[in-house]
Amino acid sequence: MIYLTKRVSFSASHRLWSDHLTEAENYNTYDKCANPNGHGHNYILEVTVRGECDEKTGMVINLTDEKKIIHEQIIHWVDHKHLNYDVPWLKGVIPTTEILVMKFWQRLEHHFPDGTLYEVKLRETESNSAAYRGGMV
Amino acid sequence: MIYLTKRVSFSASHRLWSDHLTEAENYNTYDKCANPNGHGHNYILEVTVRGECDEKTGMVINLTDEKKIIHEQIIHWVDHKHLNYDVPWLKGVIPTTEILVMKFWQRLEHHFPDGTLYEVKLRETESNSAAYRGGMV
Amino acid sequence: MIYLTKRVSFSASHRLWSDHLTEAENYNTYDKCANPNGHGHNYILEVTVRGECDEKTGMVINLTDEKKIIHEQIIHWVDHKHLNYDVPWLKGVIPTTEILVMKFWQRLEHHFPDGTLYEVKLRETESNSAAYRGGMV
Amino acid sequence: MIYLTKRVSFSASHRLWSDHLTEAENYNTYDKCANPNGHGHNYILEVTVRGECDEKTGMVINLTDEKKIIHEQIIHWVDHKHLNYDVPWLKGVIPTTEILVMKFWQRLEHHFPDGTLYEVKLRETESNSAAYRGGMV
Amino acid sequence: MIYLTKRVSFSASHRLWSDHLTEAENYNTYDKCANPNGHGHNYILEVTVRGECDEKTGMVINLTDEKKIIHEQIIHWVDHKHLNYDVPWLKGVIPTTEILVMKFWQRLEHHFPDGTLYEVKLRETESNSAAYRGGMV
Amino acid sequence: MIYLTKRVSFSASHRLWSDHLTEAENYNTYDKCANPNGHGHNYILEVTVRGECDEKTGMVINLTDEKKIIHEQIIHWVDHKHLNYDVPWLKGVIPTTEILVMKFWQRLEHHFPDGTLYEVKLRETESNSAAYRGGMV
Repeated sequence: MIYLTKRVSFSASHRLWSDHLTEAENYNTYDKCANPNGHGHNYILEVTVRGECDEKTGMVINLTDEKKIIHEQIIHWVDHKHLNYDVPWLKGVIPTTEILVMKFWQRLEHHFPDGTLYEVKLRETESNSAAYRGGMV
Repeated sequence: MIYLTKRVSFSASHRLWSDHLTEAENYNTYDKCANPNGHGHNYILEVTVRGECDEKTGMVINLTDEKKIIHEQIIHWVDHKHLNYDVPWLKGVIPTTEILVMKFWQRLEHHFPDGTLYEVKLRETESNSAAYRGGMV
Repeated sequence: MIYLTKRVSFSASHRLWSDHLTEAENYNTYDKCANPNGHGHNYILEVTVRGECDEKTGMVINLTDEKKIIHEQIIHWVDHKHLNYDVPWLKGVIPTTEILVMKFWQRLEHHFPDGTLYEVKLRETESNSAAYRGGMV
Repeated sequence: MIYLTKRVSFSASHRLWSDHLTEAENYNTYDKCANPNGHGHNYILEVTVRGECDEKTGMVINLTDEKKIIHEQIIHWVDHKHLNYDVPWLKGVIPTTEILVMKFWQRLEHHFPDGTLYEVKLRETESNSAAYRGGMV
Repeated sequence: MIYLTKRVSFSASHRLWSDHLTEAENYNTYDKCANPNGHGHNYILEVTVRGECDEKTGMVINLTDEKKIIHEQIIHWVDHKHLNYDVPWLKGVIPTTEILVMKFWQRLEHHFPDGTLYEVKLRETESNSAAYRGGMV
Repeated sequence: MIYLTKRVSFSASHRLWSDHLTEAENYNTYDKCANPNGHGHNYILEVTVRGECDEKTGMVINLTDEKKIIHEQIIHWVDHKHLNYDVPWLKGVIPTTEILVMKFWQRLEHHFPDGTLYEVKLRETESNSAAYRGGMV
């Protein structure tokens, strides 16, 4: 079993706000992340697939293919976008790093051979990151 | 002469759009940075002051004071904000990295002893940065 | 299950020296790390908690709360300190990176909901790090 | 159980080319990595061992010993070398990152106490890395 | 005057060898960098242009144009190549970092408005870099 | 003119305290850096020399020689040491980053050909650095 990780980045803005909370609760929960006009990040996305090496190629998966999947399924939709308004498949969700890694996982899962997607990790800032390895959503 | 650099970061969103250009020219000039809902970055700001060491303290400037100035004059205003809408002293300007370093310089200049502010550098992404060392604006 | 990681840093000094070893054995084991006056590092601490997303907030844990716990339990005690002399709860231990992650784990464990603390990782330098995921101490 | 990671770097060149593929298939699979004269990288190698702390020393393993093993078994052979031509124990393999981590694992495994080698990770570029945790090769 | 820096990377191999030196002198001068089969690096190239902001666009130079010039003049030629054999405009030179920055400067200089190219910096490894700001070559 | 930069690191501890100040003034000036038992950092030192390329070697200076000078004059003395107590040529000075770069400059200056040492930069943490380019001390 080899774990192969591809790292890509994108720049986006978002606002943390929950319709299940009052205005006071929202500001209490999300603090400055609840600013109405939003704020943004240079996100770093790390996608790990695992599998055995193909004997002919010495590869678990062709990195060019993996990069293409990540771009088509994720980067194309989120780069230089506002995550609350511009991404159809993020409509109605709160774009915390936790929610984003689960949504990204769902976008990627079926584009890799069964069981090969191992982890999706997203760094929002140098200080905060979230990772998801599948399971019940 | 010692050059002393302080590095701080903030997260903000912005949109590049010029009222002096047509819609087509705007998209041609700023491409995906012209997205109406904006996008964002983890900006890294580096402020360099220069001067001689105080014999008593071995310091050019007290870093705690410098940090306080940078926070009061810049970070407090821009962190977790939308640079086009939320910052009074950025109203009406196009928030390119170039313009931002000049505006940041203007905010900082008079809070340091004459001639000690040497350079303001701003990294928008890992790939792009701008620096300003004063002069005619 | 989402894994959420918070990264913070602190600066401290330490000396590696074991009372169970002779002077010669100490220098043979710890080499330049046994220097009597100590030396220091910019430590980077990464704390990972895991859990499910709260539906109302989209969060596994509020990062502001997590940061507060890490500061109160660890950073407040070790930042700008000598780990051998200044930290009551490190008295009598050899402050290797291995021992520190276990001690940090013990300080944090009971401040997070049962079973949510997943890993404590500590980078001493760019070259060396240790991680602990709980178990018998 | 403590996980202790040592990070070292080396610079090498390689060419991706498989004798099991036609010339067209090779260029289709490896693209610019199939360039006949090769290209190169600053590789970053991270070796993780795990174990319990020795009570006398507060160490899982002496980092100086670990560093010596990594240098003698790997760095000495690959640093400033062409991985396809200069390394006897890499002869005949395709030097993808996947293959290299397995080969590095095999070189290291028997130099650490049974079951202590946990992971060998290799970063080829800032974007691509592979990790191996043992198992059938 | 604003200084605008663009950072790009490429992977290449090279061999340090001078026809003006004997074999012994070559190995004495370049040590392991003289290995006949070459070795390689992930080079990081930073190109700085300076100028005044255009009032209409808030830009010194359009970063998309700058990126295109750097790719056409440099990256296209050197990425995933052997610098001694694969690059016509590097034929006959010793590909030290010093020589490379001068050669890169010559390739770029006439593609930017007169006097705007300020510095070309090249990082060969995390430890070594060279910068050139023009002048007699 | 080529500017060639070498980056090395060392780990040391220090305490900021001035004999020209009262105890209250010391704590007011240096805050937590005045802790009696000291604290420490992973310092990063960048030494820049400038000059013209030797035609025979394509080098401004042999990096192996430069590294040797930096190690003999600085790293050997300060690595894994307490800067206030263990370094004869730092006795009696306040080891701020500003003072250290000037002292390091004095140690290095006469070991390079006249006028070739251009800058000594020292990063104390990710947030703070100081640089010195010579002049009256």
